[in-house]
Amino acid sequence: MRALTPIGNLMTKLVGDFQYSDLEEKICTPDQLHPKPDTSALVFGKYFTDHMLEVSWDSKRGWANPVISPMHNLQLHPGAKVLHYAIELFEGMKAYRGEDGCLRLFRPDRNMARMLSTAERSSLPTFNADEMIKCIKRLVQIDKEWVPYSTTSSLYIRPTFIATDPSLGVASPNEALLYVLMCPVGPYFTSGFKPISLMADPQYVRSWPGGCGAMKMGANYAPTIYIQKQSELLGHQQVLWLYGEDHQLTEVGTMNIFLFMLNKNGERELVTPPLDGLILPGVTRLSLLELAREWKEFQVVERTITMAEVIQAHEEKRLLEIFGAGTACVVCPVSSISYQSREYNIPRTEPSLSQRFLKTMSDIHYGRLQHPWAVDIQ
Amino acid sequence: MRALTPIGNLMTKLVGDFQYSDLEEKICTPDQLHPKPDTSALVFGKYFTDHMLEVSWDSKRGWANPVISPMHNLQLHPGAKVLHYAIELFEGMKAYRGEDGCLRLFRPDRNMARMLSTAERSSLPTFNADEMIKCIKRLVQIDKEWVPYSTTSSLYIRPTFIATDPSLGVASPNEALLYVLMCPVGPYFTSGFKPISLMADPQYVRSWPGGCGAMKMGANYAPTIYIQKQSELLGHQQVLWLYGEDHQLTEVGTMNIFLFMLNKNGERELVTPPLDGLILPGVTRLSLLELAREWKEFQVVERTITMAEVIQAHEEKRLLEIFGAGTACVVCPVSSISYQSREYNIPRTEPSLSQRFLKTMSDIHYGRLQHPWAVDIQ
Repeated sequence: MRALTPIGNLMTKLVGDFQYSDLEEKICTPDQLHPKPDTSALVFGKYFTDHMLEVSWDSKRGWANPVISPMHNLQLHPGAKVLHYAIELFEGMKAYRGEDGCLRLFRPDRNMARMLSTAERSSLPTFNADEMIKCIKRLVQIDKEWVPYSTTSSLYIRPTFIATDPSLGVASPNEALLYVLMCPVGPYFTSGFKPISLMADPQYVRSWPGGCGAMKMGANYAPTIYIQKQSELLGHQQVLWLYGEDHQLTEVGTMNIFLFMLNKNGERELVTPPLDGLILPGVTRLSLLELAREWKEFQVVERTITMAEVIQAHEEKRLLEIFGAGTACVVCPVSSISYQSREYNIPRTEPSLSQRFLKTMSDIHYGRLQHPWAVDIQ
Repeated sequence: MRALTPIGNLMTKLVGDFQYSDLEEKICTPDQLHPKPDTSALVFGKYFTDHMLEVSWDSKRGWANPVISPMHNLQLHPGAKVLHYAIELFEGMKAYRGEDGCLRLFRPDRNMARMLSTAERSSLPTFNADEMIKCIKRLVQIDKEWVPYSTTSSLYIRPTFIATDPSLGVASPNEALLYVLMCPVGPYFTSGFKPISLMADPQYVRSWPGGCGAMKMGANYAPTIYIQKQSELLGHQQVLWLYGEDHQLTEVGTMNIFLFMLNKNGERELVTPPLDGLILPGVTRLSLLELAREWKEFQVVERTITMAEVIQAHEEKRLLEIFGAGTACVVCPVSSISYQSREYNIPRTEPSLSQRFLKTMSDIHYGRLQHPWAVDIQ
């Protein structure tokens, strides 16, 4: 991969970005390769591929060359800022093996744009998104046999960015490590496309105005795990996160939320909360909105929606379907919401919109439908 | 340290706590010892002592034996939950070298109680606080020459707790590492006891009802660093964190905030925000409140205080002093607050209450005043 650096790249390099053309590759010897798990036995995020990508940064020298090397433990100083002040962020994206044998990424530009905005908010350095995508593509190529031969599974890609400098001052990091792991994954929920039940309890708040709820920071996740466990103890699968005195719906588990309903005029409407800083700007969310707007068959609305509205629509039988959307699960239907000591069963009207979304997205992912969102890895 | 385990301890051990009596010690060889920095050159959290304490846990086997060994890098799987979902927490406490030569901790029971409540909220396992304090005391004894021979410096102790299992599911950790680092530190602010200027901007919110602002989680810190940098770019030293439409004062930087003022009846009043879930229950905060209540010289009130009240008191010349309080700095006076395009200069009425607090706390820390809060390390 070490080629002569074109002059154009040199210019960029001067301002500090790393380049794909500087990528160093240390490939596993045959005895370092790991056996691949059976596709039927995949658990989300448990099995890792043979290689990883790393790019280190420090404030004096800027970015080092990107390196792909055998998967290995990180050596971190126990005072590293990531371990104390949660200066860390990540992305979630996937590579798919198409029915035509071609490997594809889904809208990697969107994940990289979000990663850069999160990096800025986290006081971590930025980089050139296109160069990063080239490095990720190369990593997938090297571990291409890890992309499941299955149209219900995929290779989950986890770009991660952590502050590594060993100093306990609460301050901007001077050292950081950007790295990418990959995991073959099956359906996110072991229950498959089976609808999930939600706990909605306004006493727990995931994010708030003036905070970082729209950023893919590690800090947004730690506080949710205890609440997720509470919901499981009460027999539910995920948390429906509410905000404000009017109990606005924000996210479901780690997904964006969509409601398909009849409005008061009897018109079909797809509703999802707006990008007001409280929710993550999901790539799947954006894609479903864009698909639905292209279809022009029903109204598509980004607006605040409250539990009172959901209950009224439920009582008036105007609720057609509720589902979560995210990279891990793509689309996940909701069967019920437990809220203020009542259980609301959510219908799933046929034909199901979430099923249709899943089919269209899968057709794009697995190359059955040619679409600019699916980016070839060659 | 490996002694026979008394039967009482065995009982505790069955329910999973680690024991001081099981502590394993691997002491540095002479060539592994590091030179100690000059006391005048200390920077907060930059120099670490020769040894660290570690206790590992997993959900199957429970706690392993505590181990003190030479300071070393951690080997972490790059998929460790701490690096992705910020499942991490810490404490900050200090050891002081008394004028009588005796080493003392300050209220370690309070730090451990807070650490345990944060661990529970973080889905991390709990442990026996007394056993942990004994292990920490032993660590200080081993590195006792690192406790500065100075009554303006101290040994900062950083208990840290991270989730280490290599799995990307957003779920309770099955593996974790509790560890303790120590750093000789001088005054937290290089400006010493020099008053600091604050930026108060209601568009940035540190914590919120239903969140984890009262927990010492890493997740509370990452989002603040960018804002802290904004305040520095505007020429200020720290952020005054506001909350709500009425711009309540919550914390200052990483400290609790205190206002000493005349109330509308002309009576002297020490005011600090209440423990309503938005602020950290500081050990220094508690100690200052307890001291002031013992003195019985002025009113001591924990209540919500808004910027409007501060401004009115400022205009009516009823503001005597504002200061931050925390383990790192003990007490830190505020010189000014920049808020809504105005700069409010904060007086410092003599005799200064913050100076008096600092003197009393220092007398306790350095053994000039015998006090139950100061715990001998022997």
